[in-house]
Amino acid sequence: MPYKIYIDFPLTPELKSRIVNGTRGHQLVIPAKPATVLGLGDIEPEFYDCDIIFGQPQTDAVAKASSLKWIQVSSSGITRYDTPDFREAMTQRGIPICNSAHVFNEACADHALAFMLAQSRQLPQALASQAPNGTEAWQAIRSGGVPLRGQRALILGFGAIGRRLAELLAPFEMQLTVYRRTPRGDEGMPVVSESELPAALAESDHIVNILPDSEATKHFFNAERFAQLKPSSVFYNIGRGTTVDQDALVEALKNQQLREAWLDVTDPEPLPLDHPLRQQSNCFITPHTAGGFAGEAEACIDHFLKNLARFEKGETLENRVI
Amino acid sequence: MPYKIYIDFPLTPELKSRIVNGTRGHQLVIPAKPATVLGLGDIEPEFYDCDIIFGQPQTDAVAKASSLKWIQVSSSGITRYDTPDFREAMTQRGIPICNSAHVFNEACADHALAFMLAQSRQLPQALASQAPNGTEAWQAIRSGGVPLRGQRALILGFGAIGRRLAELLAPFEMQLTVYRRTPRGDEGMPVVSESELPAALAESDHIVNILPDSEATKHFFNAERFAQLKPSSVFYNIGRGTTVDQDALVEALKNQQLREAWLDVTDPEPLPLDHPLRQQSNCFITPHTAGGFAGEAEACIDHFLKNLARFEKGETLENRVI
Repeated sequence: MPYKIYIDFPLTPELKSRIVNGTRGHQLVIPAKPATVLGLGDIEPEFYDCDIIFGQPQTDAVAKASSLKWIQVSSSGITRYDTPDFREAMTQRGIPICNSAHVFNEACADHALAFMLAQSRQLPQALASQAPNGTEAWQAIRSGGVPLRGQRALILGFGAIGRRLAELLAPFEMQLTVYRRTPRGDEGMPVVSESELPAALAESDHIVNILPDSEATKHFFNAERFAQLKPSSVFYNIGRGTTVDQDALVEALKNQQLREAWLDVTDPEPLPLDHPLRQQSNCFITPHTAGGFAGEAEACIDHFLKNLARFEKGETLENRVI
Repeated sequence: MPYKIYIDFPLTPELKSRIVNGTRGHQLVIPAKPATVLGLGDIEPEFYDCDIIFGQPQTDAVAKASSLKWIQVSSSGITRYDTPDFREAMTQRGIPICNSAHVFNEACADHALAFMLAQSRQLPQALASQAPNGTEAWQAIRSGGVPLRGQRALILGFGAIGRRLAELLAPFEMQLTVYRRTPRGDEGMPVVSESELPAALAESDHIVNILPDSEATKHFFNAERFAQLKPSSVFYNIGRGTTVDQDALVEALKNQQLREAWLDVTDPEPLPLDHPLRQQSNCFITPHTAGGFAGEAEACIDHFLKNLARFEKGETLENRVI
C-alpha cells in the first residue's frame, strides 16, 4: 500500500537520493524548508493529509494531520512529544511514535567512555600543558589521574546507552551500580532504589547521568544530591541538561564537593558564553555532540527505511516510545 | 642475607617510610640528591660497594660498582642501558636488570584508548567549540568523528601495553592487526611481517605505535611509511619519540597524508614550544604523561619490593630486560 510520506528532515542531494531510492512505490513530500536543530521548518499543505512523518514535526500541526498513521522522530530525545496531552492524543488515535535512539546510542556510549578516560588520563590538562617534563606542574598532571580499573561507577538511566557503556567498561573491571526509575531485573548488575541513592552517590568515584528529560527528572541532581558526592568524584552528564540544577552544580564545583564535571548537555543549549559553568576550570563541556558521528544523517534515514519496511508488513516498530 | 641497597629514586617522607618499612633487615643508602626525570643525581661513595640499585643509576658509575648484584630501573624505558656494551658488561658480570613496565603498562594502554576515543569523539574540538548548536561549525564537529566500532587498527609493538590495549578495544569489535619485530605465535590476532607492512599501513584507520627505542626502530616511521597511510587515518605514538621522523610527520600532516597525529612522546622532550608539530592543528600532544597515574611512585616502590622478595628467594625477577 503506497503511503504519503512527509520528510521533515534536512536533505543534501545525496541524502535525498538515498531516501527517494528507499521509498519507491510511496509518495514523498519534501518541503522546501525542513526542520533543523535550530528551528522549525515550513509546513506544506500536504502535511495535513500525509500518512507518515519522518523528522521533527510540530505537535499542533500533527493534531490537524487527520490521515496520520505513524511518526518516526529523527532524534533520540522526544521532549517536544513527551507531554501527557500529546501522548494521550496519539494513543487515542492509535498513532505510534518512534525515536531514533538506535542510531545514536553507540556514539553516546562512546562519548561517555571518552569523557571518563579523558578525565582519568587528564587529557585536557595534558594537551594544554607547556610545562617541561619533570617540573612540578608536569608531575601534577602526570600523576593527577586515577586509573578506571577497580573504581566505582554509578550509571543513572539504563537504556541502550547505559547498557552499551557497561559493555565498553567491562575490561576495566569497575564496580558498576545502576539507578533507573523502573528496574526490570535484567540489568546484570546491582540496582539501587531511590532510598539507596544517597549512599550510592557517596561511595561512587564516577557518576554517569543518562537520565532522560521529564517532569520527574527535572533538577534530579540538585544541591542536596551534589552534597552527597565525595570530593574526589567526577560527574558526567550525557542525558539531558534539565536533569541538573546548574546553579547547584556551579556551587558544588566551586566548593570542591566533587572533583570535576563533564557535560555534553546543558540547559539551555547552547550554554551562554558567559555562563558560570564555563568559568569553572573543573568543568568540561562539549556542545551536545555526543550522539553525532560521520554518517549520522545516512544512519537516520536507514533507520527510518528499516522501520518503514516493518510498518508495511505490520511488524513491531523499532524504538517505539509512544 | 642483608643487602646494601642504593635508592636512586626521589622520595617524599611518606615514600621514604614505605621503602624503609619494606626493606627491614637490609641496609639502605638514600643519597641527598636522587636522580629525577630532569637529570642525574649525586653519587654517594657508598654507591660503589652496594649490592642492589633501585632507580636510574648512571652507566659509568655502575661499571665501578664492584659488588653489584641487581639493578631495578624505576621506569619502563631503558634507553640509557640498552647499548650493546652495557648489555654485554652486565651479562658477563651476571647482573640482571629489570625495568618497571608492569607499573606503567595499564596507564599507557588507558592513555592509548583515551587518545583513540578523544579522536573518534573529536573531544578537543568539541571542548573548545563556542559554535551554537545547529550551526555549520557545530555540525562539522558533531558529525566529524568516526565510531571505532568495526574500524581497522594496526598496533606496532605488542608487549604488555599492546596486549592490554587489545583487551580494552575488544568491545569495539575492531579489526586488529599486529606488527612486532619478533612474532611469538601467541598474539591471538593477525601479525604482519615487515614486507606486509605497506599494505597493512595503507588499509589501517588507526596506527598505534608502541615500538620501543632502539637502533633498529630509529625513525621507523619516516616519509616513506607516512606516504603509505590513507588520508583518513590517525597515527598515535605512545612508545618513544625517536621512532618517528618528526620532520616527515610535519610534512605528512601538512599535506594531509593522514588525518591527525596524537603523540605522547616526542624527540626531544619537552618538545620546544616553537616546534612545527605544535603549529599543526591536526597534531595533539601530551607531554609523556601516558604512564603516569595517582600513586605511581608508591606502585614503583611496591614493584621493587616485590622483586626484592623474589631476589632474596632466588626466584625469577619480574620485568627482567637484561
